[in-house]
Amino acid sequence: MSERQAIDTLVNEFRAGAPRALARAITLCESGRGAAVVAALYDRAGEATTIGITGPPGVGKSTLCSGLVRTARGIGKRVGVISIDPSSPFSNGALLGDRIRLAEHFTDPGVFIRSMASRGHLGGLAGATADAALLMDAFGLDVIIIETVGAGQSEVEIASLAQTVIVALQPGSGDSVQVLKAGILEIADVFVVNKADHPMANQLRREIRSMLQIMEYRGWIPEIATTQALSGEGIGELWAAIERHAAYLNESGEIERRRRDRFLHQVRAIAAGRIRELVERSVGGEAIGNGDPYAAAARALKGLGIEE
Amino acid sequence: MSERQAIDTLVNEFRAGAPRALARAITLCESGRGAAVVAALYDRAGEATTIGITGPPGVGKSTLCSGLVRTARGIGKRVGVISIDPSSPFSNGALLGDRIRLAEHFTDPGVFIRSMASRGHLGGLAGATADAALLMDAFGLDVIIIETVGAGQSEVEIASLAQTVIVALQPGSGDSVQVLKAGILEIADVFVVNKADHPMANQLRREIRSMLQIMEYRGWIPEIATTQALSGEGIGELWAAIERHAAYLNESGEIERRRRDRFLHQVRAIAAGRIRELVERSVGGEAIGNGDPYAAAARALKGLGIEE
Repeated sequence: MSERQAIDTLVNEFRAGAPRALARAITLCESGRGAAVVAALYDRAGEATTIGITGPPGVGKSTLCSGLVRTARGIGKRVGVISIDPSSPFSNGALLGDRIRLAEHFTDPGVFIRSMASRGHLGGLAGATADAALLMDAFGLDVIIIETVGAGQSEVEIASLAQTVIVALQPGSGDSVQVLKAGILEIADVFVVNKADHPMANQLRREIRSMLQIMEYRGWIPEIATTQALSGEGIGELWAAIERHAAYLNESGEIERRRRDRFLHQVRAIAAGRIRELVERSVGGEAIGNGDPYAAAARALKGLGIEE
Repeated sequence: MSERQAIDTLVNEFRAGAPRALARAITLCESGRGAAVVAALYDRAGEATTIGITGPPGVGKSTLCSGLVRTARGIGKRVGVISIDPSSPFSNGALLGDRIRLAEHFTDPGVFIRSMASRGHLGGLAGATADAALLMDAFGLDVIIIETVGAGQSEVEIASLAQTVIVALQPGSGDSVQVLKAGILEIADVFVVNKADHPMANQLRREIRSMLQIMEYRGWIPEIATTQALSGEGIGELWAAIERHAAYLNESGEIERRRRDRFLHQVRAIAAGRIRELVERSVGGEAIGNGDPYAAAARALKGLGIEE
């Protein structure tokens, strides 16, 4: 079977709704060979609601995610979950445990779960996540949840990819002050105070509220939901907040701006990935010489036909 | 004062040995405007010994680093330290505490310490760290220690930049198995079992040794040093292992290959940073259209004169 035929077969299976084809299409994109598949399928995308969840380790993101999946399934939605692992070489254990919280959905054919390492993608994490979200959307999943630990670049990614960004925080952890520092306030559409039975839960809510007052929001002002994800308490209210935000996006026309941003983000990721390969090839050659690395970089770019 | 004059002044101050000039030169590079400074100074670099330290959070990297600084100072070496912060928006507190372990060296004019966030550099972390190491080398520092938590890409960076890579591990933390998984074995030149008084220290040493036996090393076989960084115990032996590795690099000629790798790594980082700017400008325009993101990326690259 030629590569062209293999892709045609994959696309046909994908259109017929085979989850295996979705999984293989995402894998193709991760390895940098997804262009033809995306070209054949992108026009089926555009209907899904994408939700991002970020927050510090241990805050209960996976449990929240599992609760949202349950809620969405309860109203008949098909759900995709993209879990981004920070891929530290030193701390995989805890994350594996996290993944188990999604286990109740493993056998549900209406739920598609995909874990992604935060590195090792030719087009970078940005490209791989954007491709996966686009393909899940094209596959006909109604809700796509992207879950990531807030570390490195991943929370910026999530803001570029999701329509609604949930920032989960934990009482008594000193998170709130850090959040203000890191500019997380700019990306949150809904704050979740998880572990609501904690004695400091009220204080955390107050802190978030007073931080929100300092900010000058135009349009949507972030909501604060209170949950106890393990027991499922508050997940309904969180879902309602997400729906209110979705309604705001539609009524204000903001949804179009977010879609455009997401598209440009994805294009940027793909272009950057392609160029990285070219640079790699150019720099790999011995002709770039020694000495001043900036001058050598300029020569390598010139070799690609790029003048500064 | 024109920009040219400002750079000439900076370069003169740098050559005269003003630490302020070194700090400002690194800042210039971080902001993507360091080409002229590096061009004027790169030929002074090439003499320093660069040591990388990586390992999981809490293993005592900063204390180890401080111990190595003390040892190097004791034999009259001038030392530069580059501390790479993982810049999680959620967990800055602990890291700040870490930095304090270097405090005894803050007032020593023979020690130059630079903290770097792991993101927010135009040329990426790779570029910023490589520039800082090159400039410290050109400044005449004899030993440059790059310290980073093992997360994301930073431990790959360290392997590309340092002549000798130290991987620090902690007994009783289950690190050893993770290390094998993550391919850290390939980058370690010296393993450190820190907190040597821990009851599991011997077991960790045994585990590392048996992992080393599985690997097929050509040339240098990683050494295992045992330290108690807080009390300074074992730091002398660690330093001796670093010197043995340096001697091996010189005798085998391997040092030349490492220098070449580092140079190419830096060129790659600079070229990638430049191109990212170009892509940003090209994708920022509205002309790239909608629809298939891969096709749009190809159009954006074509706009830069790059055909695939």
